[in-house]
Amino acid sequence: MNFTTQLIKKISEKKSILCIGIDMDPDRIEIKSSPTLEDLRKYTLKVIDATLDVAVAYKPNMAFFERWGSKGYQWLEEMLEYIGKDSILICDAKRGDIGNTARQYAISIFDHFGFDAVTVSPYMGSDSISPFIERPEKGVFVLCLTSNPGARELQLLRADGKPVYMNVIKMVKRLNANRNCGLVVGATQGDEIAEVRRESGNLPFLIPGIGAQGGDLEVAVKEGNRDGVAIINVSRSILYAGDQSEGAIRASARNFQEQMNDALFDLRRNL
Amino acid sequence: MNFTTQLIKKISEKKSILCIGIDMDPDRIEIKSSPTLEDLRKYTLKVIDATLDVAVAYKPNMAFFERWGSKGYQWLEEMLEYIGKDSILICDAKRGDIGNTARQYAISIFDHFGFDAVTVSPYMGSDSISPFIERPEKGVFVLCLTSNPGARELQLLRADGKPVYMNVIKMVKRLNANRNCGLVVGATQGDEIAEVRRESGNLPFLIPGIGAQGGDLEVAVKEGNRDGVAIINVSRSILYAGDQSEGAIRASARNFQEQMNDALFDLRRNL
Repeated sequence: MNFTTQLIKKISEKKSILCIGIDMDPDRIEIKSSPTLEDLRKYTLKVIDATLDVAVAYKPNMAFFERWGSKGYQWLEEMLEYIGKDSILICDAKRGDIGNTARQYAISIFDHFGFDAVTVSPYMGSDSISPFIERPEKGVFVLCLTSNPGARELQLLRADGKPVYMNVIKMVKRLNANRNCGLVVGATQGDEIAEVRRESGNLPFLIPGIGAQGGDLEVAVKEGNRDGVAIINVSRSILYAGDQSEGAIRASARNFQEQMNDALFDLRRNL
Repeated sequence: MNFTTQLIKKISEKKSILCIGIDMDPDRIEIKSSPTLEDLRKYTLKVIDATLDVAVAYKPNMAFFERWGSKGYQWLEEMLEYIGKDSILICDAKRGDIGNTARQYAISIFDHFGFDAVTVSPYMGSDSISPFIERPEKGVFVLCLTSNPGARELQLLRADGKPVYMNVIKMVKRLNANRNCGLVVGATQGDEIAEVRRESGNLPFLIPGIGAQGGDLEVAVKEGNRDGVAIINVSRSILYAGDQSEGAIRASARNFQEQMNDALFDLRRNL
């Protein structure tokens, strides 16, 4: 089954478009002044226990594991095992390299770690993305318009009469023969989500930037899910919610899930 | 001492602008049909022993370690220790993410692994690069014009009257207050190396694409080193040279070093 179909099926099974970003920052955990890797490991298991039936997907961010070197990757291996197969596992890696190297990253991410999907950067062009899209069941979200302020510097340059990110959409549509490609579109971009949706047909979206980064949840859900699916990522506002107890984390995740489902309901009623 | 000054000093000490890319591909080692991680580890020590006085820099490519997961990163940790401090260590990572995440990658690459420099992608803009440039002694090579065919798709789009990669040069010049930024410019781009040099002042270049990828060595050395320094990366043509013995690897590395030094001598005579 191709990735897009799997994603749609999982969304309807779990009644959720919430993706939880696992970016465990030792500076944000309030257990002690400098948490050890073991503290982070335990904290993360708590987050997973609290949210396994609420999230449709988890998106571990490689940087937060890599910062601990080989021990961090061991933690990632064990954590993915713990999450199991009932959620979509997205590797937030933003990789982008020549074909020969991209092939090694694909082996790492899909075979070694067993992720279902990956985020990649388009700067080096389609041959840097090709090794990731060969297997229809594995998904690839290509950076299109990102949620950070610097996004504007390159992505919004006007090239051949339209912004660079529009050229990325065209590239990704061309690469989507296996129906396993999607786009990363930042929630902080407001009106532009609608524009990306119009240009991209029904490519799935992965939308970060909700919560700590300040994107508008209702706009992201509605514009993203018009004529296609969009999953919405939340990291910090769930991971470090309230008193950082399992209850507080679960309540925050449930609250985001409900807000997203309300907006979806609203969208469908008006279609 | 800022990174650019360190690099120039090391080049004149070692009389070499050769950077050796460590991309250990199990499919290319002729020891047995499927080499183990232990085989690769031993083979790599042989490469280092054969070239330690010939290369000015080593550029391990993260993908080829990451494909083995935590065990691959353990190998990388040990290998960097083995190379020691007499060569510039460049992490070929091509990272590019929001500031919060880029900060974790900087901790990984500079603090945990102890690299001297890193390659990054410009697609997400200058705030995705900033966390890497805070320490003057640590270097950052930003992808500008890469050596693969797909480079043309985004990098050569004309934006505001000039190609996207020219906008990257402008961005990197602005970020270079600490004199620790450089550019990745593919050797396969021929004439464009000269154009990048004209636009970028004396930013250091890291030039991949020589050897297996077919770039012209003499052009790369001469155009790259006009008004600035350029180190030239070779991976496969050294790693898997001849009968893959220590002697064959050393001979190939020495041969590249000499060709590069001849071209440099020629350039300086004509300046």
